[in-house]
Amino acid sequence: MKITLAHGSGGRATADLIESVFAGRFSNPELDKMEDCAMVGGSGRLAVTTDSFVVTPLEFKGGDIGRLCICGTVNDLLMRGAVPKYITCGFIIEEGIDSALLEKIADSAAEAAKEAGVIIVAGDTKVIEGSGGLYINTAGVGFVDENISISASNCAPKDAVVLSGNLGDHHAAILSHRMGITNGIRSDNAPLCEMVRAMLDAGLQIHAMRDVTRGGLGTVLNELASASGCGFEIYEDKIPVSLEVASFAEILGLDIMHMGNEGKMVAVLPGEQAERACEIMRACRYGENAKVIGLATEKSGVSMRTRIGGRRNVSVLIGEGLPRIC
Amino acid sequence: MKITLAHGSGGRATADLIESVFAGRFSNPELDKMEDCAMVGGSGRLAVTTDSFVVTPLEFKGGDIGRLCICGTVNDLLMRGAVPKYITCGFIIEEGIDSALLEKIADSAAEAAKEAGVIIVAGDTKVIEGSGGLYINTAGVGFVDENISISASNCAPKDAVVLSGNLGDHHAAILSHRMGITNGIRSDNAPLCEMVRAMLDAGLQIHAMRDVTRGGLGTVLNELASASGCGFEIYEDKIPVSLEVASFAEILGLDIMHMGNEGKMVAVLPGEQAERACEIMRACRYGENAKVIGLATEKSGVSMRTRIGGRRNVSVLIGEGLPRIC
Repeated sequence: MKITLAHGSGGRATADLIESVFAGRFSNPELDKMEDCAMVGGSGRLAVTTDSFVVTPLEFKGGDIGRLCICGTVNDLLMRGAVPKYITCGFIIEEGIDSALLEKIADSAAEAAKEAGVIIVAGDTKVIEGSGGLYINTAGVGFVDENISISASNCAPKDAVVLSGNLGDHHAAILSHRMGITNGIRSDNAPLCEMVRAMLDAGLQIHAMRDVTRGGLGTVLNELASASGCGFEIYEDKIPVSLEVASFAEILGLDIMHMGNEGKMVAVLPGEQAERACEIMRACRYGENAKVIGLATEKSGVSMRTRIGGRRNVSVLIGEGLPRIC
Repeated sequence: MKITLAHGSGGRATADLIESVFAGRFSNPELDKMEDCAMVGGSGRLAVTTDSFVVTPLEFKGGDIGRLCICGTVNDLLMRGAVPKYITCGFIIEEGIDSALLEKIADSAAEAAKEAGVIIVAGDTKVIEGSGGLYINTAGVGFVDENISISASNCAPKDAVVLSGNLGDHHAAILSHRMGITNGIRSDNAPLCEMVRAMLDAGLQIHAMRDVTRGGLGTVLNELASASGCGFEIYEDKIPVSLEVASFAEILGLDIMHMGNEGKMVAVLPGEQAERACEIMRACRYGENAKVIGLATEKSGVSMRTRIGGRRNVSVLIGEGLPRIC
């Protein structure tokens, strides 16, 4: 079935679309009530975030927009130490998309939600003119223990920076697809619940965490630097990158530091806890290539010790990167 | 300044866009931290909802997409008796939009948020190809007292239905704009905090509330009917409509029962409390034309006693209504 503008009317066709594509897949007692808003419980401080997803193609090697829209928002909640609980999903659908594809994407979102331990408590469906595209916004709510204080502003000189795994996989997978290049590169899109939980449960004094997404590691480290007043020094030879992605980036002249990811994070914590954090990450799903990649410094800015012994400044991403990467 | 794809990179251009358009206008201590998610407080049960806005034109008589995106989500929270507190805003921007227009829309959203007593605690900005369009998703979080239980399923036979004011204004305003018709019709887009608060504070036993949006009153009453197992009987001569909108609808053959609204609600409550509810609404901003329009019945379905003494069934909206009305 091709979706038409009538499916966005708010009347019977919208109800049919919701019933056939979303209701069963996202089912839970609260969503099933089909009220104007969901009523949910919980205690502690609330963590609230939102993210929109405009990735193209909608399906790519290693994932799709459905998995991505759950992982992206779940990871944002995790980065401040919250336990993600509730997700809202707003679908903006271009007419002409096939309902079978929508169903596949909804399946994928439902599966990612299950993996991440969240439920989709509210949704919205709009249909616009177009040619089969899809945009999804998710918002997330989680709860944070009173004794947890994780913030970019907490980074302090001599803290270590731990990166949870290989950079550039998502960026290279999306770009390979668009360029029609066949290779083995798969997106890393994943929820990082397990590794964050494990680090917090181990009692590590994590100062800051950030997921490394569309602006790349270079942008994230600069954001942490400007929020905290520290600088960062990282070591090129410690940055984990798969051989295939490294070659791909080299051929196309891409900077690994500005390539987008969807299942990687950095944790900034006291230097003496860095190896322990790294071990914990490595023992978790999606963390097998975690590495200590550098440290926070007194001096502002982000610099990299290169493989050949030089030093270069690492800026935020300037210009456009890869449009619609997420 | 025209927005380009680079403004969606997640790097410097995105930061510049956020800084120049959103940060100042939406400023509050939590948003200002620019973290991955906001940390907020509150107690009681949580109400969570989401809505996407794809209205075209972006500005229309009586409002714009900025005001709409706040009011729509705030109203959804109110309809279950929640006090709206926190809003997230995801902007999906088509390249080519002028930043001056974005600023105007952000101003309008900020003003509506202020009126509704909510703060915008998290945001996201994406840029896609296109020609100056804009989509906004908002999600909302509110708190509900433990002793409040408002749900579509609570409607009971003999309950009265109170409508907060004239139908069709938003629909007619959008359609007039698209058809290039000059008239005095203005959108009703408004947050209904004051009237909901006043009714709850007065101790009315409200069984259900719904805002009457894109599917129109016909769709809302059918939804309430199917959730509760009641039916509804309404009186055509009680339905408030301005003369100008009534004429507009008559000329174009539109059914008032399926015209969209963005600042109207129905309350379903025990018949003996109906006049009191109506008085309270009338004393509030946006409620001056409130009326008791009918009652819940044992018999399923929604029927209307017409002005000339006949009776007709009122269905949900079938087909497409007015695409991109909200």
